[in-house]
Amino acid sequence: MLKGVQTITIVGTGLLGGSIGLALKQGCPTFTGRIIGVGRRQSTLQQALDLGCIDEMSLDLPAVLPRTQLLILATPLGHFDALLRQIASHDHPNLTITDVGSTKAQVCQLAARILPAPSRFVGSHPMAGSEQHGPKFARPDLFAAKPCIVINEPGHQPHATELVKQLWSALGMRLLSMTAQEHDRAVALISHLPHAAAVLLVHLAMGDRALAVASTGFADTTRVAASDPAVWADIFSSNRQPVLEGLDRLADLIARFRTLLKNSDPLALQNFLAAASSARQQWAASARSGAAGDEQAK
Amino acid sequence: MLKGVQTITIVGTGLLGGSIGLALKQGCPTFTGRIIGVGRRQSTLQQALDLGCIDEMSLDLPAVLPRTQLLILATPLGHFDALLRQIASHDHPNLTITDVGSTKAQVCQLAARILPAPSRFVGSHPMAGSEQHGPKFARPDLFAAKPCIVINEPGHQPHATELVKQLWSALGMRLLSMTAQEHDRAVALISHLPHAAAVLLVHLAMGDRALAVASTGFADTTRVAASDPAVWADIFSSNRQPVLEGLDRLADLIARFRTLLKNSDPLALQNFLAAASSARQQWAASARSGAAGDEQAK
Repeated sequence: MLKGVQTITIVGTGLLGGSIGLALKQGCPTFTGRIIGVGRRQSTLQQALDLGCIDEMSLDLPAVLPRTQLLILATPLGHFDALLRQIASHDHPNLTITDVGSTKAQVCQLAARILPAPSRFVGSHPMAGSEQHGPKFARPDLFAAKPCIVINEPGHQPHATELVKQLWSALGMRLLSMTAQEHDRAVALISHLPHAAAVLLVHLAMGDRALAVASTGFADTTRVAASDPAVWADIFSSNRQPVLEGLDRLADLIARFRTLLKNSDPLALQNFLAAASSARQQWAASARSGAAGDEQAK
Repeated sequence: MLKGVQTITIVGTGLLGGSIGLALKQGCPTFTGRIIGVGRRQSTLQQALDLGCIDEMSLDLPAVLPRTQLLILATPLGHFDALLRQIASHDHPNLTITDVGSTKAQVCQLAARILPAPSRFVGSHPMAGSEQHGPKFARPDLFAAKPCIVINEPGHQPHATELVKQLWSALGMRLLSMTAQEHDRAVALISHLPHAAAVLLVHLAMGDRALAVASTGFADTTRVAASDPAVWADIFSSNRQPVLEGLDRLADLIARFRTLLKNSDPLALQNFLAAASSARQQWAASARSGAAGDEQAK
């Protein structure tokens, strides 16, 4: 696993970056190389070092690039432009680059525009995380059995794709291949729209006495709304078109549900609820069995 | 606690009814009386009896009413009409009646119309449950530390109100008083609209390859969509007006979010997300401390 990789550099050692480090160091005996954490804040890096997420810290990405074979961008999307420019000036043929950004078309376009060899940039999206942030919430098992999308576009170097797949496989993830566009449409549906809905549900109840009686249903449905607003403003903005399309479809569904309820046709309403109930149960069963759309890394 | 109550009868021994029985028998040493389970299916009652949720079972509500002091209706809302008619024909002055129905105005109107002494019907709504159903999922701690709304309308007999409050206090719940109308508006906001949103999010992604990459965010946001469709068709239908109003407000919020995203004003979008994030965090903190709007039973 991760053959020929002596050094992995993680830029951004928050929840995701920190957890990648922990998982590699604690749960991946086949990787015996070194992990460098790069960031902008000394204190965050120091915390990641103290927690055992990384072996070494640096504030200077160009300085560590020459000895890095696998570079993982785990910062908010807003920093990618500047980071890719730094990488472009210090690129070398043995460098494979990936990222954990929540949208992919914009990032791949950036990489294609900025990097001298964008064929060695293979974007990925490990579908794991939580509403918490910072290295103190890092967990070595954050990724285990979760899906990870590895972007598959013509022109990617096979070696780079292979290495990125090996990384996520080593962390116990279930791999799926998608183009950047397929990815962005998919995550709009199963992540960005649910996130938007959670935010809107909180706005609906904000400041109302009703919140005093909110319980498990509200807690689960709105949990993600507590996430970092800056990170999510980035995510929504970088996936604008698919999210706008999803919002339109959601508005249509609200109108449809409204009609079902207003028409006092309990059976039609029940059928609409039953279709969702059975689809949700099926999804949970296939997610548990890990069967849904799997593709193992070679 | 529950002074003068020798026999509590629970109609409907599913998740909620079964859990009330378990909680009274296992977690409430001050109640030493008898618990009768009434239902329509011998098999469900037998299961509840085998699991220790009830002391005795019966298919015949009128037969057990004379020795019942506290009657708890824990069936789906659709059965209340028929049940209240049975109670009306066998009512007695020592009988206090409550229910666990998810909406209250319709139930209180039914009780006022059907019962000879509606002043002894004090509706309640323990905000606990899950997407599971049946006595096999009953848990004695289902209600602990959760909010319970006890309906407060002019004309209720103080003794009946007192008894119903004692019941939920004995199960460890945090009590709140509301009129039926206040209750229905509140639960539309914090339960029925989140439920509708979860159902619509599942419809949005149903049959799409995107489901293969859905993870924790989708799982939490849509969990309640797996609930029993018949129960929820009842709930939505019985709370039609407040839910329709909530759907309209949700549609307005979608339009507002759409504009923020379309206008490419990242700061305005971030502020909108930040307001929800901070409200959601505040709510979680107050729910943990149990501070929100508490009112202890005397």
